[in-house]
Amino acid sequence: MTRILLRISYDGSGFKGYQKQPNARSVQGEVERALAKIHKAPSWPSTSSGRTDAGVHGRRQPVHFDTPLAIPESRWARALNSLLPEDIYVHDAEIVADNFHARYDAVGKEYLYKFTAGAEHDIFARHFRYQLRQVPDQQLMQQAADYMLGTHNFASLSSPKTDVVDKVRTMYAIDVWKEEKEWTLRFIGSGFLYQMVRVMTGTLLDCGFGERNPEDIPALIAAEDRTKASKTAPGHGLYLSQVFYEKALLEQHLTETAGRRKNK
Amino acid sequence: MTRILLRISYDGSGFKGYQKQPNARSVQGEVERALAKIHKAPSWPSTSSGRTDAGVHGRRQPVHFDTPLAIPESRWARALNSLLPEDIYVHDAEIVADNFHARYDAVGKEYLYKFTAGAEHDIFARHFRYQLRQVPDQQLMQQAADYMLGTHNFASLSSPKTDVVDKVRTMYAIDVWKEEKEWTLRFIGSGFLYQMVRVMTGTLLDCGFGERNPEDIPALIAAEDRTKASKTAPGHGLYLSQVFYEKALLEQHLTETAGRRKNK
Repeated sequence: MTRILLRISYDGSGFKGYQKQPNARSVQGEVERALAKIHKAPSWPSTSSGRTDAGVHGRRQPVHFDTPLAIPESRWARALNSLLPEDIYVHDAEIVADNFHARYDAVGKEYLYKFTAGAEHDIFARHFRYQLRQVPDQQLMQQAADYMLGTHNFASLSSPKTDVVDKVRTMYAIDVWKEEKEWTLRFIGSGFLYQMVRVMTGTLLDCGFGERNPEDIPALIAAEDRTKASKTAPGHGLYLSQVFYEKALLEQHLTETAGRRKNK
Repeated sequence: MTRILLRISYDGSGFKGYQKQPNARSVQGEVERALAKIHKAPSWPSTSSGRTDAGVHGRRQPVHFDTPLAIPESRWARALNSLLPEDIYVHDAEIVADNFHARYDAVGKEYLYKFTAGAEHDIFARHFRYQLRQVPDQQLMQQAADYMLGTHNFASLSSPKTDVVDKVRTMYAIDVWKEEKEWTLRFIGSGFLYQMVRVMTGTLLDCGFGERNPEDIPALIAAEDRTKASKTAPGHGLYLSQVFYEKALLEQHLTETAGRRKNK
C-alpha cells in the first residue's frame, strides 16, 4: 500500500460539514465516494487534518489515504477531480511515508475569519463573508486578541460539545486587519478545539463593539467556562487556510506574517 | 397606481436567466412571485432594464412595476427581501414618473466581464470568474477593443437568435485591465444585443492569445456575420453593472473612468 496526501479545497456552503454523516452531504463523503470509484470498492477510507463545520471552507486542506493502485503521483488530482463535484477540488497529490498522519502529525494550523462591516449587503459574498452592519474598533479587537496569545486551556473559547479532554492549546499569532470594508482575522495556533475560532471571533467582535473589555479576556479564559464568552460567529466567514507538518515551515510563516503585527 | 423602480442584485448561478420561463428558475419569476404575494394576487408583472442569460450576474439592475398599494418608498426593499430567496437582493425602491420605463428610457449600460488567467483553479470563483490557464496579451486585447468603439452594426458580434432587427449600437468605452491574475473587461455602450458582451469577450480573448489580429476587427464587424467572430465566452464571468437613464450621468461616468484609458 502507498500512502497519498491530497491537498483539497472546498466551498463549504453546500455541505453539512467535513465529516461523513448519514443522509447529509459532506466533503469526506464525496471524497471517499470518488476514492471508492477509483478503487472499484464499495467504500474507501480517508483521514483529514481535521473537521470543519457546516458552511466552513477549506483551502488546500490535507487528506491522506492508502492505495494498492500504482497510479503515478501526478495523475491522482486529475482522476479525482473528474469524479468530484464542482465544489471540491484536489490541487495536488503526493506520496508520503507510510506512517505519515494528516491529523496527528500537524504541528500548527492557520484559520482566516472574513467579514465585512458597515458595507451594503452583498449577495455575492453571502456564503463567503460574515456581513455586519456595525463597524468594530480594530484596536480594541487586536488588544483582546493579544490577550488570547500563548498557552491556555481554551475551554471558555470553544464548544463544550466534544469528547476532547485536553483543551490546552497555544496561540502563536492572532492578527486583525482590514482593507476598506473587508476585514480579516488570522489565527495561527498549535491546534484548535471544536468551534474555537468561531467563539474567539464572536468574543473579539464583542470587544470591538465595546460590549466587552479586552482586559477581561484573561479572567474569561481562566474561568474555563464557555458561558463566559460571546456567541459563536457564523461558519460561512471561516476558512481553514494552512496546515503545517514541519516546525520550520510554521516558524517561517510566523516570521513572514510578522510584518503586519509590527506595523499595527 | 404608483410606479416603483427597484434596484436589484442577483447571483446568476442559480438561475436559468433573468426572464420568466416555465419550469425553470428565473430572476423575474422570483421577483414577480414576491410582488404577487405582497399584492395578494396570483401574479404581478414587472419590467426590467433588460434580460441576462443563465449564469450572468446583476448588480443594482433596474426593475419597475406598478402598484395600487400605499407602501412608503422606504419599506419596499425590506418587504421584498423578506420574501425573496437569498440569491436576489433589493437594494432600494424609488417612486418614479408613471411614464418612466426601465428598458426604453435607458441611455447607456455598463457590463463587466471578469476572468482569471494563469492562476490555479479557484473553486470559490467558479461561479464568478471565467478561469483561463493561458495568459492573453493585454495590449493586443486593448487594441482590438479600440477597433470596436463607436457606432456599428454589431451583427457579427452578437447572437443571431433574436427578433431585434436594428443591430446598430454605440460603444463608448471598452477597457481591459488586470490586478495580478484578476482581469476585468469593462464595456460601456448605448445598448447591447443578445450575447453581445460574451461574443465581444470571446473575440477579444482570441486577439489576446494571438489567434486573431486586432487589425482584422473592422472587417469582421463590416461582415455583419456572426460566424466571423469567436466563440461566446461563458456567462458566469459577466455582470450587468450599471444602467444609465440620464445622459449627464453617463457622461460623468465616462469622464470618471477615463483615467484608466489615459494611463494604459
